[in-house]
Amino acid sequence: MHQFQRSRTRKMLKQRGVTRALFANPKSITWLSGFAPPIQLGPHIFAGGPPLLWYEAGHFTLVVVDAYPDITDEINKELDCTVVSYQGYTYKETLGGADHLKAALRMVLGSGRNGAKARGAVGLEEMHVPVHISDLLFEAIGDLGNRVAIDGWLEPMRKVKNAEEMEKLSENFALADIGQAAVRREVQVGKREIDIWAAAHGAIQRAAGRRVPLGNDCVVGQRELNFTGWPLDYEIKSQDTFIVDRGTGIDGYFSDGCGTYYPNEPTREQKAAHRTVADALDLAVSLIRPGAVAGEIDEKVRRFIMDAGYPDYPHHTGHGVGVSSHEAPRIVPYSHEVLEEGIVLMLEPGIYLPGQFGVRLEDGLLVTADGAEILTKHDKSMP
Amino acid sequence: MHQFQRSRTRKMLKQRGVTRALFANPKSITWLSGFAPPIQLGPHIFAGGPPLLWYEAGHFTLVVVDAYPDITDEINKELDCTVVSYQGYTYKETLGGADHLKAALRMVLGSGRNGAKARGAVGLEEMHVPVHISDLLFEAIGDLGNRVAIDGWLEPMRKVKNAEEMEKLSENFALADIGQAAVRREVQVGKREIDIWAAAHGAIQRAAGRRVPLGNDCVVGQRELNFTGWPLDYEIKSQDTFIVDRGTGIDGYFSDGCGTYYPNEPTREQKAAHRTVADALDLAVSLIRPGAVAGEIDEKVRRFIMDAGYPDYPHHTGHGVGVSSHEAPRIVPYSHEVLEEGIVLMLEPGIYLPGQFGVRLEDGLLVTADGAEILTKHDKSMP
Repeated sequence: MHQFQRSRTRKMLKQRGVTRALFANPKSITWLSGFAPPIQLGPHIFAGGPPLLWYEAGHFTLVVVDAYPDITDEINKELDCTVVSYQGYTYKETLGGADHLKAALRMVLGSGRNGAKARGAVGLEEMHVPVHISDLLFEAIGDLGNRVAIDGWLEPMRKVKNAEEMEKLSENFALADIGQAAVRREVQVGKREIDIWAAAHGAIQRAAGRRVPLGNDCVVGQRELNFTGWPLDYEIKSQDTFIVDRGTGIDGYFSDGCGTYYPNEPTREQKAAHRTVADALDLAVSLIRPGAVAGEIDEKVRRFIMDAGYPDYPHHTGHGVGVSSHEAPRIVPYSHEVLEEGIVLMLEPGIYLPGQFGVRLEDGLLVTADGAEILTKHDKSMP
Repeated sequence: MHQFQRSRTRKMLKQRGVTRALFANPKSITWLSGFAPPIQLGPHIFAGGPPLLWYEAGHFTLVVVDAYPDITDEINKELDCTVVSYQGYTYKETLGGADHLKAALRMVLGSGRNGAKARGAVGLEEMHVPVHISDLLFEAIGDLGNRVAIDGWLEPMRKVKNAEEMEKLSENFALADIGQAAVRREVQVGKREIDIWAAAHGAIQRAAGRRVPLGNDCVVGQRELNFTGWPLDYEIKSQDTFIVDRGTGIDGYFSDGCGTYYPNEPTREQKAAHRTVADALDLAVSLIRPGAVAGEIDEKVRRFIMDAGYPDYPHHTGHGVGVSSHEAPRIVPYSHEVLEEGIVLMLEPGIYLPGQFGVRLEDGLLVTADGAEILTKHDKSMP
């Protein structure tokens, strides 16, 4: 799994003079190894720290609590990436996740092919490596004076997806479509935001055959802040629009996508706004191709909405998606980023009249050699 | 919110000579401030690090990304605890969560009542403070040679719950009961583990009127590892037992609880096992009172199961619950911990015959002045 990503990272680190590195950002670890612990109730309660990925002499070693045999056995088949797991839970003695993690990491560091004599900088994801781990690293491999922060170094490489990643993304997009279809069936006067959420979440989990973490917005148009928000017990009223912008997260990858639904025939104003947003999304999709500049796409789509007489939307026009639900490239005003084939993008123009109604439509797409292929299949039409 | 917890912590830190401290364990932060970010898709994607709680001169300051106005406004009403929030999301410029967090923390450290001249040790939750934050701390307040690891210091104090916490726990236990009732209705031959999970999760979220993170086990008896596991697409067969051990997590607190269900009339062996586990749970509950020793309770309950001719269960007899779904005191063989009034405990004996069937029953209870009050109300009877 994810050998291509490790191979690119090896080259990049070598070019920058980094001979050893400790990754601790969960997004980096998923991207480099394919490992993604379940999110369900947050970090594993018996772990002694976050999953860690140590790089040395071209080899990656994942140090992780012993709670995920299925995933870690799979990784252990790789030649350039192995797993060392440490005891998390036991009922026979005091819990000692942190001590066990440190002992495991010490062993990994001690068995390094170059050991303490290695030259070159030591890379650290400083935003994610906790102090008890950096202390141990200092102890084990000596002076970290040549330490370098490598936070964010993988992000530009994460933009273009390969076939293995596309498979995981497609699985997520298919689930998101199932969720949107359930929403379309469920949006009715008198139901609450949370009812719609629960119905769609159920449909997604049943289709996946397993638990699926689910994010983001599920809001009625009557809300003051009617473009973003978690589902609450607001009841759908007859002239509401209903925005559902949701992403699933399985196998370490995320989907996204947004639809706007109506419990009844939309009003004339709502129809006009919906049509304008649909046209803006079509425009956005038509602008996607290798060589297109993010900021220029953003400007054209934003201007289209404003030229139609609506207020500017208070968010990005789009963003990448992968091991994170929002990643590079961002389709935002200031960006000079140039699109490349293989990037996966979300595009999501909207119109919001606070306290009245909101409309947003969002598609996911793959940048192809000469344009874009749409990955989301949900029905975005009006009733 | 949670003023009592801060007052106790202030005293404890003073006794141990710690004049300043940085908390970063999310459990510590919830316990000290009441703040608990949603879990949904993992940590906030635009945050520059974990939520941080700085303690100095008797005052607590929460430094957190600006995504939670509802919760942070509430905390800002407190006299001894304030919130400094920093920008996470923007579409108008490059995302800079880490820089904004560091700037906010630098300001907080600079405005300290004692500033750089403070004496006494600086406490750090080393398992949770990331390197970019400890570096900044070092820069801002000078030598951290008198630094002390404070990981785990709050845990003993977290055991006894106060009224404010009991309210949050009760809300969670009520939701767990709703989930168990839904499971009882749904367990039928041909349905899958994930179907049961989705139905119960839906019932819980609809009752709560908001999203509810949900944990743990949902397994058919035919599984080889039939005491723990996430719901998958195993179909319920006519002679299966079905173990559902689930905890909700809202307002930063958790519930727990387990039932065993049957799609049909249980077999003679299943009935006998279920009765034995029910009796073991009754025995366990009868042993709970201030002064009881955890290891002794564990031994008696374990022995009861074994004396009835069943194998020992490969897990604890019980554990505390609060801001974590599993915390002190643990009811385990080696423990000399003595129970006190106000502790909230889960008790969960079980019988497992791998690949055949498993039975586990679990109740939550509050240790009272002369015994225990059961907090879970789910029906644990056989059909």
